[in-house]
Amino acid sequence: MAIVLGPNRYGKAETRVVRVSRDGDAHRIKDLSVSVSLSGDMDEVHLSGDNSAVLPTDSQKNTVFAFARQHGIGEIEDFALLLARHFVDSQRAVAHARVEIHEYGWDRIAGPHSFVRDGGEVRTALVHSDGTGGAESVVSGLTDLVVLKSTGSEFHGFAEDAYTTLAPTDDRILATAVTARWRYRALGAPWGESYRAARAALLGAFAGTHSLSLQQTLYQMGRRVLGERPEICEVRMAMPNKHHFLVDLKPFGLDNDNEVYFAADRPYGLIEGSVLIDDAPDAPSAWV
Amino acid sequence: MAIVLGPNRYGKAETRVVRVSRDGDAHRIKDLSVSVSLSGDMDEVHLSGDNSAVLPTDSQKNTVFAFARQHGIGEIEDFALLLARHFVDSQRAVAHARVEIHEYGWDRIAGPHSFVRDGGEVRTALVHSDGTGGAESVVSGLTDLVVLKSTGSEFHGFAEDAYTTLAPTDDRILATAVTARWRYRALGAPWGESYRAARAALLGAFAGTHSLSLQQTLYQMGRRVLGERPEICEVRMAMPNKHHFLVDLKPFGLDNDNEVYFAADRPYGLIEGSVLIDDAPDAPSAWV
Amino acid sequence: MAIVLGPNRYGKAETRVVRVSRDGDAHRIKDLSVSVSLSGDMDEVHLSGDNSAVLPTDSQKNTVFAFARQHGIGEIEDFALLLARHFVDSQRAVAHARVEIHEYGWDRIAGPHSFVRDGGEVRTALVHSDGTGGAESVVSGLTDLVVLKSTGSEFHGFAEDAYTTLAPTDDRILATAVTARWRYRALGAPWGESYRAARAALLGAFAGTHSLSLQQTLYQMGRRVLGERPEICEVRMAMPNKHHFLVDLKPFGLDNDNEVYFAADRPYGLIEGSVLIDDAPDAPSAWV
Amino acid sequence: MAIVLGPNRYGKAETRVVRVSRDGDAHRIKDLSVSVSLSGDMDEVHLSGDNSAVLPTDSQKNTVFAFARQHGIGEIEDFALLLARHFVDSQRAVAHARVEIHEYGWDRIAGPHSFVRDGGEVRTALVHSDGTGGAESVVSGLTDLVVLKSTGSEFHGFAEDAYTTLAPTDDRILATAVTARWRYRALGAPWGESYRAARAALLGAFAGTHSLSLQQTLYQMGRRVLGERPEICEVRMAMPNKHHFLVDLKPFGLDNDNEVYFAADRPYGLIEGSVLIDDAPDAPSAWV
Repeated sequence: MAIVLGPNRYGKAETRVVRVSRDGDAHRIKDLSVSVSLSGDMDEVHLSGDNSAVLPTDSQKNTVFAFARQHGIGEIEDFALLLARHFVDSQRAVAHARVEIHEYGWDRIAGPHSFVRDGGEVRTALVHSDGTGGAESVVSGLTDLVVLKSTGSEFHGFAEDAYTTLAPTDDRILATAVTARWRYRALGAPWGESYRAARAALLGAFAGTHSLSLQQTLYQMGRRVLGERPEICEVRMAMPNKHHFLVDLKPFGLDNDNEVYFAADRPYGLIEGSVLIDDAPDAPSAWV
Repeated sequence: MAIVLGPNRYGKAETRVVRVSRDGDAHRIKDLSVSVSLSGDMDEVHLSGDNSAVLPTDSQKNTVFAFARQHGIGEIEDFALLLARHFVDSQRAVAHARVEIHEYGWDRIAGPHSFVRDGGEVRTALVHSDGTGGAESVVSGLTDLVVLKSTGSEFHGFAEDAYTTLAPTDDRILATAVTARWRYRALGAPWGESYRAARAALLGAFAGTHSLSLQQTLYQMGRRVLGERPEICEVRMAMPNKHHFLVDLKPFGLDNDNEVYFAADRPYGLIEGSVLIDDAPDAPSAWV
Repeated sequence: MAIVLGPNRYGKAETRVVRVSRDGDAHRIKDLSVSVSLSGDMDEVHLSGDNSAVLPTDSQKNTVFAFARQHGIGEIEDFALLLARHFVDSQRAVAHARVEIHEYGWDRIAGPHSFVRDGGEVRTALVHSDGTGGAESVVSGLTDLVVLKSTGSEFHGFAEDAYTTLAPTDDRILATAVTARWRYRALGAPWGESYRAARAALLGAFAGTHSLSLQQTLYQMGRRVLGERPEICEVRMAMPNKHHFLVDLKPFGLDNDNEVYFAADRPYGLIEGSVLIDDAPDAPSAWV
Repeated sequence: MAIVLGPNRYGKAETRVVRVSRDGDAHRIKDLSVSVSLSGDMDEVHLSGDNSAVLPTDSQKNTVFAFARQHGIGEIEDFALLLARHFVDSQRAVAHARVEIHEYGWDRIAGPHSFVRDGGEVRTALVHSDGTGGAESVVSGLTDLVVLKSTGSEFHGFAEDAYTTLAPTDDRILATAVTARWRYRALGAPWGESYRAARAALLGAFAGTHSLSLQQTLYQMGRRVLGERPEICEVRMAMPNKHHFLVDLKPFGLDNDNEVYFAADRPYGLIEGSVLIDDAPDAPSAWV
């Protein structure tokens, strides 16, 4: 019996880089949080404190900034791949790189140089790479897309046990904050177009589905993405049920015909599931 | 020498009420956080624990929900006034009510019943009332309006002392999260129209001002609101300077001509100031 | 009628400084967040963008670090006074400085150099100064001191109106997160000793008071501080009523004799009040 | 090619239950956040909206409260197992339950019924169960244990590339917020004793290790836990490197011999790794 080192990784998290580009007279900005995580032959640093295999996380941060200057920032999937390959290709001890990027959106105010943040929603990309020519995977997605239906949502016919007091309903508010991640049949998808179309499909299916349960809505949202985007082979979603409870106004001599709700914080339901094509390739490391 | 009770108030904070209204076939939703604070002759509850003057905060919460049903929710300033007057008028011991409302915005997705949250920005209203026929004041505003200019901002000619190392610049990123509050010459302003116009004026002046300092930008933003909205007599703003530092890429053989920035969290500059009409009436209690 | 500049101030917020001191072999650490705000003759920077009166917030940050090295950090009240006087005394245009400090506590682990954060509670100081020889005030305090009584708290005999449904109770959980600030009869109090004694008095009175309302508990907490510390002349407290609702277990054939509670997030009651000595000097600017 | 449902689960997250127990005259309190997640034969609810297999998350919440009354709450691992088995054993469609509990600690103030929150640190348990007699696993842990060493930490001899500017150091501040999770050789460990001993071992090894890298410290912390607790077979840790940068005071004519630091927020290093016994049983589902 001996004590041994198990799986490990290290890197720099949440480097906040903003890149301004001139496009004729008008500026464009990319506003990212970049997290890098490297793994490989790192036994010695753990066992003896020998750092010779360790590229400092400070250098990883510098690389993010330098690459933003040298290569520009286009789609976040491409920037993540560029960074991931660089670390594996250039560092002997690094066998594998994981790069996760969150992108914050900005809209133009009047004029070519002024912008306003467009809300809490975040576009995401997660890349794994064993280096140029090695195994690679890309997962795209979004988080904090908050949506609500004021009708067209039912919930009844559920299992009941000794602890069930919930009344069935045929008209409730359905609200959630969508986190969705999708993977592709192959590298080289049109990342930006896929993102915009997947986002629109998620919104469209949420709005268009007469909901009998949040699970059913989730499944329809995944179906819609897969049906419209053949380059995507699986969609995973996590959707909290942000409960809106109808307030009992009878003590005050008032009815409440689905008009006044209390928006609760905790606890909340949490629905998680994936929808995929049956011949999808096996899930890559970025997925698990 | 004796120990005495000083100023005091109590109430229910952050009641989260969502109101659905049918406008023909299409629904409208109002999504609010309502905070009530009451004061008056409350000595006994502090000194002896006699609660006979205390309307429970639970009843205040119930009132928010019941009023949402009975009166609907139009502009948040009107709903706040309605609530404030009610508490003072109906409770013998309550001389003064303060009602603060935060409104979260939603945009329509396709269809009449589906909505998506439109970001982190919040519309605010703060009302003080001594009851129907008593002194009343209304302060409107917004918070978390995050804006950025990618050029057109300088900072130089500042005071220098023994601790100054900052280099002057004639081109920097200027970014802030605007919190603005404005007060009116009189009650009865067109709240919604004032809000939309004041917000547009703040954005327009931010974008249109070639900035020599954040203070100058703040002043221009306030001027623009006052110039366009005669019903508003004072604007107060708090604007953190969300620093974007130009990254030094020379160690990597790269220039950086205002392209790559590090977005820092803390510390941050904080600029606060008010702009007012010289004949503005004295500031009401809601202002201080 | 003209548009004019109203009250304004500016400064650097939340400079996070950690100071290590050697005390023989053992180290001591001070872990602070320092916020500086300056005001004075700042019209020109607002009106014309002339920055000659503006000491950059970057220089203010540098001063915090340099003073930590030159003067060390003892009690946060003294460090705040030192900084505030410096800015007013050394800058022609600055008439008034406000310095607010939050101190995070650390406990020793075994050995002279290792520490563990002692929780969410924060010690605070707020200083206003018109410079050496000018008007000065000090307000000390704490925030996020979370306390709970599992019995010994009643609430009944309250006012009832048409919206009251709350049942009176003679045994409930009372829980709050105390924010307290206290001011002194004069400068030069034993800051550290006052802080430790005031904190102990707040805790002792919370635990020792059989509560008929949270207002009564607040008043007793203030009384206790004033009774034990003659250098303190007023205490202000803000105490959210962190509701713990007794869960109705009857649907499951179970009683619930004050054993099982649901800890709710929002809404919450909010009780604010001050307790003072009747011959207290007028409140200083740091207080308002 | 067809679209199919992939892995899915659902449940109630963050039910906040507080349980008061009388132990003679003195009270004890348990303050938990309980998250339940169920999976099994849930195809129909996704595909057709047929909810007959779905136990509402509201019933799951009720069960948490009812079980707190019926069975009391001892160690969180036992309470999580009790809940997990219940859902699988009692619901035909549920094949697997995951229960995660966060426990918040309280210390006594004077007297038998008054308590103060003991800080940001949280004790955790994560249980997976296929029901009584089925596969089961328990993972215990803690999060937000914030520690700092003011000396005894070096970092040098690291890999350098074209983007490396970091200077080697033989004396720095080492600070982190430990998240640790550990698994056991078998069910039925003395959960509370294991927790207290593992926590002490983590703290002791952090303080006692002269650090050449955070990875080395992490490994020593894991070794210490395994060396002292034979019932534990693997420890996983995630430790952000909370950077404290030595401030350059030379522009102000001051040295800085490891005394004054800037505590940075972002970006931060993130070190993750596991330490295990080489004959540890395969990792259970709760681990992955």
